[in-house]
Amino acid sequence: MNAVSRPAGSLTILGLGPGAVAWLTPAAQAAIAEASDLVGYAPYLAQIQDHLPGQRRHASDNRVELDRARHALDMAAEGRSVALISGGDPGIFAMAAAAFEALEAAQASGSTVWDAVEIRVEPGISAMQAAAARVGAPLGHDFCVISLSDNLKPWAIVARRLEAVAAADLVLALYNPISRQRPWQLAEAFQIMLGHRAPSTPVVLGRDIGRPGETVRLTDLARADPAEIDMRTVVLIGSSTTRRWVRADGSEWVYTPRSYPGEPA
Amino acid sequence: MNAVSRPAGSLTILGLGPGAVAWLTPAAQAAIAEASDLVGYAPYLAQIQDHLPGQRRHASDNRVELDRARHALDMAAEGRSVALISGGDPGIFAMAAAAFEALEAAQASGSTVWDAVEIRVEPGISAMQAAAARVGAPLGHDFCVISLSDNLKPWAIVARRLEAVAAADLVLALYNPISRQRPWQLAEAFQIMLGHRAPSTPVVLGRDIGRPGETVRLTDLARADPAEIDMRTVVLIGSSTTRRWVRADGSEWVYTPRSYPGEPA
Repeated sequence: MNAVSRPAGSLTILGLGPGAVAWLTPAAQAAIAEASDLVGYAPYLAQIQDHLPGQRRHASDNRVELDRARHALDMAAEGRSVALISGGDPGIFAMAAAAFEALEAAQASGSTVWDAVEIRVEPGISAMQAAAARVGAPLGHDFCVISLSDNLKPWAIVARRLEAVAAADLVLALYNPISRQRPWQLAEAFQIMLGHRAPSTPVVLGRDIGRPGETVRLTDLARADPAEIDMRTVVLIGSSTTRRWVRADGSEWVYTPRSYPGEPA
Repeated sequence: MNAVSRPAGSLTILGLGPGAVAWLTPAAQAAIAEASDLVGYAPYLAQIQDHLPGQRRHASDNRVELDRARHALDMAAEGRSVALISGGDPGIFAMAAAAFEALEAAQASGSTVWDAVEIRVEPGISAMQAAAARVGAPLGHDFCVISLSDNLKPWAIVARRLEAVAAADLVLALYNPISRQRPWQLAEAFQIMLGHRAPSTPVVLGRDIGRPGETVRLTDLARADPAEIDMRTVVLIGSSTTRRWVRADGSEWVYTPRSYPGEPA
């Protein structure tokens, strides 16, 4: 019984947060320090400074999430302590779902090779949270989080969800808003929102938050220009109650109040 | 000009994460260490071990968010370095929105007393992220975050949003699911979801995640019982694609795949 004699390794799927080391949780930091092998998209691995001398790094391209998860699981099955590294929160449009897809598919196919691997997920600060914090509290009331990528889902589903969210007056956080392969979807998303919300609805564009060159721009639904937005940007679109507000010192803030019209605050 | 001669204090609105110190970000930890005054709901303040000897603590009841924010701003206006402390992420159903409501209302009323206060928000891990990590990756695809509290919004709005989210097949995270004052809303929320989803749809109940006595229970929409859920629980309800899956070792996991039917994965 090879599976029994093999030492059981572990796979910890963790998130670095949005870039700054100041947002890396102690739990994720500890998981990195304890790992024998680090697997992840090359720029994420480059961010990690405090690695053990003997640690092996396995950098990969960003597109092949399932392959990366399988590679990490294979090493864990050999008894290694593997950290599979995402940016942000691994549970939000990141590696955790890919790892479970790989695990379930293997088990369904009758494979037992990964059965003894101990699995753990460590949460992280996601990009929308960091972008929100920079401008105030746009996610302070009910909100929705949608990936605009239609690589893995039909655009009709994305559009239907955007319509529903727009009609229900929910704040919206958009991940993967635009890429060379998906150039027109973001403009359509803005149009769908404009079908239900005022042109002056606040829009926050947070790019590379927590990284060198970070930018945060405030605009509105009428003026938000997809040409000025890229895949490293998280887009936050306000609800009808979201406030864009200028303090006496000229600083601009965006927040969504806790109360909704119809009841006393 | 009293406002000019007064030393400018600061207000940092920060989140402790879901309870465990291992999830407190270094940035939030530093903000606590640098503060002269800590303001927050008493149990949150009690969680903080590493405070400076001279630090003042101002514990308050959980209900009076606006009063707490005003108190924190008043002390900051006196030149103190104040940390206003939330659980989880201060930007998600927590203190940040309340602080900006207080600030804008004061400015609108002509008050200049808080004008010189430097404001900063520090994000934290929110309860849904910690609960999701414990069971796998239920938030791995598009999702929605709704507070079931109708203290500050009409139930009709909540119900409309739940209908929209249910119809659009989004994963749903529910905060403030139930309390003595709001005993029936959660059952109605489950009913609304059942109008669009299978009775077997996975439901995750994460209570006090990261705290002593933490529990995570997996159930489904047909069996989820509001009588077994309280206000310290975050409720995650899957979409039609969310998988509840048992590994060979008997451990149970919940995840939402990255792909959606209609396109090849």
